[in-house]
Amino acid sequence: MSSSSASITFNDTVRALQWSERGLRLLDQRKLPSVVEYETFDNAKGVAEAISSMRVRGAPAIGIAAAYGAVLAARQRYRENPDTWKEAIEADLAKLASSRPTAVNLFWALDRMRSEIEKVNGDPEPHLLKAAFSIHDEDIAANRVMGDLGASLLVGASGVLTHCNTGSLATGGYGTALGVVRSAYRQGVVKIFATETRPWLQGARLTVWELAQDGIPATLIADSAAAYLMKTGAVQWIAVGADRIAANGDTANKIGTYALAVAARHHGVKFMVVAPTSTIDWRTETGEDIKVEERDQNELLNEYFARSGSVITAWNPVFDVTPAALIDCIVTERGIVRNPDRHAMKVLADAR
Amino acid sequence: MSSSSASITFNDTVRALQWSERGLRLLDQRKLPSVVEYETFDNAKGVAEAISSMRVRGAPAIGIAAAYGAVLAARQRYRENPDTWKEAIEADLAKLASSRPTAVNLFWALDRMRSEIEKVNGDPEPHLLKAAFSIHDEDIAANRVMGDLGASLLVGASGVLTHCNTGSLATGGYGTALGVVRSAYRQGVVKIFATETRPWLQGARLTVWELAQDGIPATLIADSAAAYLMKTGAVQWIAVGADRIAANGDTANKIGTYALAVAARHHGVKFMVVAPTSTIDWRTETGEDIKVEERDQNELLNEYFARSGSVITAWNPVFDVTPAALIDCIVTERGIVRNPDRHAMKVLADAR
Repeated sequence: MSSSSASITFNDTVRALQWSERGLRLLDQRKLPSVVEYETFDNAKGVAEAISSMRVRGAPAIGIAAAYGAVLAARQRYRENPDTWKEAIEADLAKLASSRPTAVNLFWALDRMRSEIEKVNGDPEPHLLKAAFSIHDEDIAANRVMGDLGASLLVGASGVLTHCNTGSLATGGYGTALGVVRSAYRQGVVKIFATETRPWLQGARLTVWELAQDGIPATLIADSAAAYLMKTGAVQWIAVGADRIAANGDTANKIGTYALAVAARHHGVKFMVVAPTSTIDWRTETGEDIKVEERDQNELLNEYFARSGSVITAWNPVFDVTPAALIDCIVTERGIVRNPDRHAMKVLADAR
Repeated sequence: MSSSSASITFNDTVRALQWSERGLRLLDQRKLPSVVEYETFDNAKGVAEAISSMRVRGAPAIGIAAAYGAVLAARQRYRENPDTWKEAIEADLAKLASSRPTAVNLFWALDRMRSEIEKVNGDPEPHLLKAAFSIHDEDIAANRVMGDLGASLLVGASGVLTHCNTGSLATGGYGTALGVVRSAYRQGVVKIFATETRPWLQGARLTVWELAQDGIPATLIADSAAAYLMKTGAVQWIAVGADRIAANGDTANKIGTYALAVAARHHGVKFMVVAPTSTIDWRTETGEDIKVEERDQNELLNEYFARSGSVITAWNPVFDVTPAALIDCIVTERGIVRNPDRHAMKVLADAR
C-alpha cells in the first residue's frame, strides 16, 4: 500500500497527519513545542473532535484529516453492515463537515471523498484510502511546486521573514510560505526570520519548532520588531500564506500580515503570498467583500479584565486583508502572478 | 509636611511611588494586574534592589524612587552618626546609581539630591524630603503640561492609539503619552486603544490596568493589529513616549514604535512623541548614533528552544529608533515641536 510517508525529504521531516493500520495519527499542535504527542483516531467522530478542538489546524491539514476521517467512517460502517454503509456514512461526513464550518478545504476534501464513495463496490477501505492518500500527496506536491517557484524569486536574497505557521504542520507536508522558505534554504544560504504571531504564537510555538526538527536555523522576532528588522536591511522578502484570496488578488491572512505588507512597501522589501489556487475565491471580487472575523477578546485580555462590566475590552480580529497593490507576487501551484490585480489573476483561472 | 499625594486628580488615581513616615511604598509592577501589592522600603539598599528587580520601572519613576532612596539613606546615616553621615551616604548613593545603569533620570535625580546634601545642616531628613517631593511634584506638573498640550492637538479626533506604558506607573504620576490620553479623555469623547507591547506586555498588563483604575475605557489590541486598526479609520493619532531623543528629533523608544510610525504615515495618521526635555540628549546628533540594546532572547523563546546548541535563536531589541521625518510632533513641557528636525528642535534648547 502506498503512503505519503514516501514523500518526506531531508529538510521536511514533520508530518502532523500520519496514516497507520490502526487509524489516523495526529500530532497535538496545542501542546507544541514542549510536548510532542501523537494520538491515533480510529473513527470519524474522533477525527472531527480533533479538528474542532484544534489538535490539527491549518486549512489544508484539516481537509486531509477529514479525508482520512471518511476512510475510517467507511471501514466502520461497512463492518457494521456491508449493504447499508453508504447511507450510514452520511452522518459521519456531516459530522466531519461541521467540525470547522469556515474551512473551505474541508468541504472540498469531503466532496471529493463523497464522489469516490459513490463509485466504490465491495470493501471500500482500499479504494477510499487511495483517494485520501492522493489528496494528501497532491497537497505536498503542490507545496513543493510552490516552494521551488517562490524560492526562484529569492535567489540572491540574504534574508526572508515569514508570519504565522504555513508549514508541514498546517498542510500535508512541506508547507506553503514555509515551503518557499525550505526551498530557499536548500538552494543556498538565506537567513530565516519568523514572527511570534500573537495572540496564538503560531510562529513562536509551531514554525520555529518544525524548522528545528529539520535542523534549519531560524530567528524569532516579536511581531512589533518586523518593521525595524526591515530597516536594518536583513530581509529582502516577506513570505506569507493566505486564508482567502479575492478575484483581484486582495488577500485575507493571519492578523499582522497587512502590517508586514505596509512596512515592506515602505522599505522596498518584496512581499509574496504563497497559496494553492484552491484558496482563491473567484466569487469574491475584492477584499472589501471579505468579512473579517473577530475572535474571543479573552485571547488578549489578562483574566483580571475578563469579567463583565470592565471598562477594558479587546479588539481581536482573526485576520486582516492586504490589498493586492501591496503584494508583489502571488505564488500558486499553477504559476506566479506578479503585480496581482483582476486582470493578472485571470491567468490562474484560465489555467484550470 | 507637603506631599505629592495632593496632586492626584479625578482621572489619575494610581501612584506607583508613595512616601510614608515608614519609608517609600512601591507598587510591585511585576505582579500587575492580578496582584496589587505595595511594599515599604525603609532603606536605600532596599530601594536600589526594587529598581534593579523591576518592581518599579519607567525612567521618570526610577529617578523619583532614587531621590526618596537618598532621603532614607540620610535618615539612617544621620542616626548612626550625625558627624560623618555625609561621607557615609556616598556608598548608598553609589548603590542607587548602579541599580539601573542606563536610566538617565536616575543620575539626574541623584545629582540633584547630592547638591542638596551639600547644603544641609543638622537633621537632613526634612530638607531632603522636601527636595524629593519637589522632584516628584515637578514630574507630575510637567506631565500635566504635556498632557494638556498634546490633547490640544487631538481636538476633533475620535480615536488615539498608545504603545507600552507611559502612565502614572512609569512616572511620578499622570504620565507622558498616557498623560495626553488622560487629558484628551477629559476634554471629550475619544476612543483609546493600547497595544499589548510584546514581549513584556506593558500595554496589556500595565496601561489598561491603570486606565481601569480611573474608569477610563480602553481597547487592547495585538501589536500586529495596529496597522489594520489604522486602516479602519478608528484612530487619527498615535501617542508614544521616548527613551531618548536625539538633537535632530530622531526618537528611541520601546520596540514597535517605529512600526507604528511607518504605518501611521502610510495611513495619514498623525504621530506624536511625548517626553520631558530631560529625555533629549543634545550630544547625540541623530538616531544613527543611538546604540539599540538587545535583551535576553529567552524573553521571546519558548523554553524548549532556550538551550545551547539550538538552531533557533531570537532577536530581541529593547527599543527601536524612529526617524524625525516620521514624527509629526514632539510634545515637551516647554512646548510642541512640529515637524521636528535639527533646526526646529533648537527652540527647546533655547527655552532653557
